[in-house]
Amino acid sequence: MSIDRTLTTDREEAVTEEVLASFDATPDPRLREIMHSLVEHLHAFARDVRLSEREWEVAIGFLTRAGHITDQRRQEFILLSDVLGLSMLTIAINEPREPGATESTVFGPFFVDTAPEVPLGGDIARGAAGIPCYVSGQVRSVTGVPIEGARIEVWEADEDGFYDVQYPDGRSAGRGWLRSGHDGEYRFRSILPAPYPIPHDGPVGDLLAATARGPMRPAHLHFMVTAPGYRTLITHIFVAGDPYLDSDAVFGVKQNLVVDVVSHDAVDPTPDGTRSERGWTSIDFDLVLAAHDGS
Amino acid sequence: MSIDRTLTTDREEAVTEEVLASFDATPDPRLREIMHSLVEHLHAFARDVRLSEREWEVAIGFLTRAGHITDQRRQEFILLSDVLGLSMLTIAINEPREPGATESTVFGPFFVDTAPEVPLGGDIARGAAGIPCYVSGQVRSVTGVPIEGARIEVWEADEDGFYDVQYPDGRSAGRGWLRSGHDGEYRFRSILPAPYPIPHDGPVGDLLAATARGPMRPAHLHFMVTAPGYRTLITHIFVAGDPYLDSDAVFGVKQNLVVDVVSHDAVDPTPDGTRSERGWTSIDFDLVLAAHDGS
Repeated sequence: MSIDRTLTTDREEAVTEEVLASFDATPDPRLREIMHSLVEHLHAFARDVRLSEREWEVAIGFLTRAGHITDQRRQEFILLSDVLGLSMLTIAINEPREPGATESTVFGPFFVDTAPEVPLGGDIARGAAGIPCYVSGQVRSVTGVPIEGARIEVWEADEDGFYDVQYPDGRSAGRGWLRSGHDGEYRFRSILPAPYPIPHDGPVGDLLAATARGPMRPAHLHFMVTAPGYRTLITHIFVAGDPYLDSDAVFGVKQNLVVDVVSHDAVDPTPDGTRSERGWTSIDFDLVLAAHDGS
Repeated sequence: MSIDRTLTTDREEAVTEEVLASFDATPDPRLREIMHSLVEHLHAFARDVRLSEREWEVAIGFLTRAGHITDQRRQEFILLSDVLGLSMLTIAINEPREPGATESTVFGPFFVDTAPEVPLGGDIARGAAGIPCYVSGQVRSVTGVPIEGARIEVWEADEDGFYDVQYPDGRSAGRGWLRSGHDGEYRFRSILPAPYPIPHDGPVGDLLAATARGPMRPAHLHFMVTAPGYRTLITHIFVAGDPYLDSDAVFGVKQNLVVDVVSHDAVDPTPDGTRSERGWTSIDFDLVLAAHDGS
């Protein structure tokens, strides 16, 4: 029997036209624009790959599993967006255009908004295991103006690669926030971050395995910096020499965010006088904020 | 400050290139093809609409809500696929090309695979409320060969627009399966289907409201017909004259699937001798199956 390919294409295009038209009366013009574009691209994808009904079922099952594994402590949809590069693309689209500002990277699924405040120079590790790491630098504008009182949120995994929200006992550790001082200076005690796998015991992990991709992220410290009049900066600092800098599972690495970690012997005095038999490390990194309307 | 638009575009394209390359080593060529196309279209969507970070967060929240409302009895991701027309597009892509076969439409979220068998001429309403409707016809091939022993699954909403899986007491009603007879004939007693809204108390309902779309589906009976050597047919029959035929929330209507319902007085004898003070109705509809390899 001959295939009437023209008829098939017409039938498919008729579906897309009908769906596009159904969104024409959307009152909010931005939502209308987004839905029209989403339908166009979603349908083009299904048509391009000639999506089978079985593959559609697998996709529905994948999303269902992602929804069911997601809870207050696990966000599989953010992981999915991360491993598909949508998170980093969204960041690129919205990146401020001001040369000199610290670049952004992924927010990730591990931020919590109830971390404790620590004083300038205080300890954000709060019992998380790892080699001590003293982090310091200056918060400033792209024109070099020091920014006093910026709120600096920091969160990180411990040396075993776990964030506190992944601990079974629910305690808070490896996170905190502080304010920059009069000259924009900031400093805190943390632990040296270690590489770790993103949670890969769910559907996103299955996708990575099926596509021969690894789940590892290079070692990093998360920052979110807010100050009146400036764009919120969401970023990491990465550790130079990390073996996963070229294969970050979530595509978050930018060369400007890779920093050298200085190692110190146990006998060297630490900035806060705390002793560590394992020695300690330090990082110097300035946080340069774009103006709020900088575009 | 000037916007370096070229730099921005380069940065965005670099993200997409990096993500595409990460899927290059996918062992299964079909999965590799799907992931490459998905990334291309997903990224093109985000770029085309200049997706904001706030909009990305709204999308993550939407998917999370969809996941959490989905359970054994509620499938929000199928509803989402349905209202975006992806379900009907997938059906169109996979529709058999044999002229004369009964057309397919959406499967929907309300099928259950544990419905009881009923004999030829039996009752699939089993207590579901509504005006009796006697449905009959022939299962046959496109060349007119009667198909004996085809398995015919039927499911439908009651006159209040609810499927049994939406009943609070969990009883089974308005569904069942039977086998076609020697000459491919089939007949069963059901109830006259009524229009109903798709479940719209979740995120998909919010999307329909925000886009000024209605949640209603025109009245229909669901069929799934399987027979060895033939393609499984998943379809509906719709009721001629229904006010929602032109605005089906899930785009499922095809003109060949719209049938005339014959009304009968209460005094007219029913096919199975059952009495109904409200009168009764009948539908005649043949189920024409494409060959399994029909392409």
